[in-house]
Amino acid sequence: MISEGDYVIFFYGKKKWLTKVEKGKKIHTHIGIINVDNIIGKPYGISLETNKGKIVYALKPTIYDFIMKMDRLTQIVYPKDLGYIVARTGLSSGDKVIEIGTGSGALTTFLASIVKPTGHVYTYDINEEFVSIARKNITKVGLEEYVTFNIKDVRDIYDIRDADLIIVDLAEPWTVIDFVKRALKESKMMVSICPTMNQAERLSKELKKGFIDIECDEILVREIEAREGMTRPVFRMVAHTAYLVFARRLYDDSR
Amino acid sequence: MISEGDYVIFFYGKKKWLTKVEKGKKIHTHIGIINVDNIIGKPYGISLETNKGKIVYALKPTIYDFIMKMDRLTQIVYPKDLGYIVARTGLSSGDKVIEIGTGSGALTTFLASIVKPTGHVYTYDINEEFVSIARKNITKVGLEEYVTFNIKDVRDIYDIRDADLIIVDLAEPWTVIDFVKRALKESKMMVSICPTMNQAERLSKELKKGFIDIECDEILVREIEAREGMTRPVFRMVAHTAYLVFARRLYDDSR
Amino acid sequence: MISEGDYVIFFYGKKKWLTKVEKGKKIHTHIGIINVDNIIGKPYGISLETNKGKIVYALKPTIYDFIMKMDRLTQIVYPKDLGYIVARTGLSSGDKVIEIGTGSGALTTFLASIVKPTGHVYTYDINEEFVSIARKNITKVGLEEYVTFNIKDVRDIYDIRDADLIIVDLAEPWTVIDFVKRALKESKMMVSICPTMNQAERLSKELKKGFIDIECDEILVREIEAREGMTRPVFRMVAHTAYLVFARRLYDDSR
Amino acid sequence: MISEGDYVIFFYGKKKWLTKVEKGKKIHTHIGIINVDNIIGKPYGISLETNKGKIVYALKPTIYDFIMKMDRLTQIVYPKDLGYIVARTGLSSGDKVIEIGTGSGALTTFLASIVKPTGHVYTYDINEEFVSIARKNITKVGLEEYVTFNIKDVRDIYDIRDADLIIVDLAEPWTVIDFVKRALKESKMMVSICPTMNQAERLSKELKKGFIDIECDEILVREIEAREGMTRPVFRMVAHTAYLVFARRLYDDSR
Repeated sequence: MISEGDYVIFFYGKKKWLTKVEKGKKIHTHIGIINVDNIIGKPYGISLETNKGKIVYALKPTIYDFIMKMDRLTQIVYPKDLGYIVARTGLSSGDKVIEIGTGSGALTTFLASIVKPTGHVYTYDINEEFVSIARKNITKVGLEEYVTFNIKDVRDIYDIRDADLIIVDLAEPWTVIDFVKRALKESKMMVSICPTMNQAERLSKELKKGFIDIECDEILVREIEAREGMTRPVFRMVAHTAYLVFARRLYDDSR
Repeated sequence: MISEGDYVIFFYGKKKWLTKVEKGKKIHTHIGIINVDNIIGKPYGISLETNKGKIVYALKPTIYDFIMKMDRLTQIVYPKDLGYIVARTGLSSGDKVIEIGTGSGALTTFLASIVKPTGHVYTYDINEEFVSIARKNITKVGLEEYVTFNIKDVRDIYDIRDADLIIVDLAEPWTVIDFVKRALKESKMMVSICPTMNQAERLSKELKKGFIDIECDEILVREIEAREGMTRPVFRMVAHTAYLVFARRLYDDSR
Repeated sequence: MISEGDYVIFFYGKKKWLTKVEKGKKIHTHIGIINVDNIIGKPYGISLETNKGKIVYALKPTIYDFIMKMDRLTQIVYPKDLGYIVARTGLSSGDKVIEIGTGSGALTTFLASIVKPTGHVYTYDINEEFVSIARKNITKVGLEEYVTFNIKDVRDIYDIRDADLIIVDLAEPWTVIDFVKRALKESKMMVSICPTMNQAERLSKELKKGFIDIECDEILVREIEAREGMTRPVFRMVAHTAYLVFARRLYDDSR
Repeated sequence: MISEGDYVIFFYGKKKWLTKVEKGKKIHTHIGIINVDNIIGKPYGISLETNKGKIVYALKPTIYDFIMKMDRLTQIVYPKDLGYIVARTGLSSGDKVIEIGTGSGALTTFLASIVKPTGHVYTYDINEEFVSIARKNITKVGLEEYVTFNIKDVRDIYDIRDADLIIVDLAEPWTVIDFVKRALKESKMMVSICPTMNQAERLSKELKKGFIDIECDEILVREIEAREGMTRPVFRMVAHTAYLVFARRLYDDSR
């Protein structure tokens, strides 16, 4: 049942509105006003009418919906990349993850949804404003208990040694390789999100010492309009977000 | 520490061998013989020499490694598709998932690694041989307690009503839509893995009654050879595995 | 030297304006007014200033520029597809080409630029308005002498037997297969531009009788922003225009 | 009619054999022996039987067929790239083209087929062996009269000023920019075939002085298996050949 304080997502065709359920709230859209009162106490998936007679549906938002509608000061990591990070690294429920570069918290949210309830995400950023936005975003989704926010430069940290996965979302990822070597468990993976070829190239080179299974991938998603007798891809798509550089830490007996 | 009975993956360049650690075991490769005894009691990530003097590394296999090296009688779902299924549906630890079409268990394994420890995967197939292989594959990974195997046609099941996600990997996915409507929670998602355009088209059409947010996507992964001064994509890539059709179940007051 | 009556293309960054050179003409743009008089009698490639002090360049338009800036009532065939049609069919200067579906004349123009001066393009459309626009477009480029326009249904034509290439840009390309068989030289190619999978599928099937080397391709172009230290693909791209179906006509002794 | 000395291409399914027609010639294949005598005096597109009873077809090879079956010492330029070069630069019959880096002559052949009969291709390479192979390849196709081969470093050439298009297929394309500026007509295009990102990046940077409309593109072709009720892309594809860098020469009053 939908209650006050819940988040819902309203659907009309391909258009979606994410909103918090509050008494008396009205959402003004191009298809008319959605009266939020009409769904309180109703089951998810219910339909309602706008004042212009258009039918919209009220659904429970997924992590994907929350991420796509997140407040952001920075470029978020896209679902296509989030998914491949999980699949390629084998991230599992229970894992301890370190994220370097909290940004707007899209990746943080997604990671927390996977590693909970026994795993945890430790996220680091040196920008207070980003962390503040990210914290709000994650609280909205209800996953804040699985995340520890740190406003700190990881290069000053020497006491973590047991991360299952480290994710680097920095402009100069090679500057934290020493930290990754200290903090990541032997044989576990790191991944870096690199917007440019030059970053991917330099990082791959610098990982050659101490890492193996170094791989750089790009992920493309193309939507297909599957309509009877008229099936074809959509006309425009995202051509690029970032390259993903994966690497696995070797044992180091000097550690 | 690596013990007898563990699985390890040996690396040499881009080449990988997955093996169970057993005393006296020797692996014959094009770069010489790997003597498994040499790694027992050693830490993961350690290097060792083949009898031809080549250095290989012994790492702890990830879910990805297990999936890529799985015994298979059927086409497996590829990591690129596994990852996007998780990211697009928002599958989280704790979810109850139904998989229709167990196949070789690659997807089953991946799903179990995400939903554990409080969630569960219920997988269905009518082919006993497939289920037997899948069960062996999952046991290897150690995730069998999070999976229930069923040799059964889901069309005969009427008592499940609370799935968080249903995944359909069948040649004629539209034949199980009625089951999906019965078994899936309101507002939750289903996804179908469709090798051909024709399947995606027909399924999308038949989902129009009772579902919303119907989306068909294809995922492409391209590897980049990131080498200093010579960075470029690899020369060949996988051009197609399957289309993914996503849909969200609406509320149905006749239910 | 640029003379009155010539066409020029003005460049500013990624922005382009195609215009006919006329005395006293002024082009109003977001970077100020371009005074066309300033380039008359000057060499192509010359720079000039707008009244806001921005530097623009006046270049001789290529066929590509003309096509991209063409007046159009219909979807044009994109350069990526034009190019592959020429490369895959081996269209050469001197060839006799039949185009079924003149549309806005983009493809017609491109074909004429290749087959001239000894080859010719015979283009057919049943829509007078399209033909009128296409004729204007080609005249602008100066290639009208290499094209014969016909407002006619090719299914009524029985006396052509010597086409080197036939290009079909119709919603139901299979309806003209009999004409293609009559008009195309033995062993020569036809190609059809099919926006949907369903068209490509049906056409491929119907070509199986009488044709060989049937191939369906899609072409993607991705632009790369090659900038020092920051090279990466652009963020958005065209995801789809059409499938190209190629086939080669077999000898038919009943002909 | 097929005569002695002609080239034909034999088709069987997706398999093709290119051969010169000679009396008594027999081609040994996995589907049996093809007796070339059987097609002499017959029309192109005719079918014949191998000694194992398989039906093959004898077709007239296209430029595409010749290129794909060319003897090669170097990586050839692929049809997908050849086509886009023509479409993006607007190369037309009658143009004067300079090719720097003859290689195996695939691009040379294609260019000649477009610019003939009044245009010409001047191709330069410093490797005699390459030029010798390229010359043989073009002679096979019958286009040698439209090509002048030069074993020469273009950096030593100062007397050409009227090229309509210059194509650079060198490992260090920026080393010939001064020649391009000298030899290319104002406002005309050059294109360079760059296997790596690093080449594309450096060249794009060095072209900023003296050129405009600098664009870097990559072209992908994906084949679709269009079969009734089972249409889908093929499973594997070419992921990369080269980046194409285009640029247009500005007017230079010091010239």
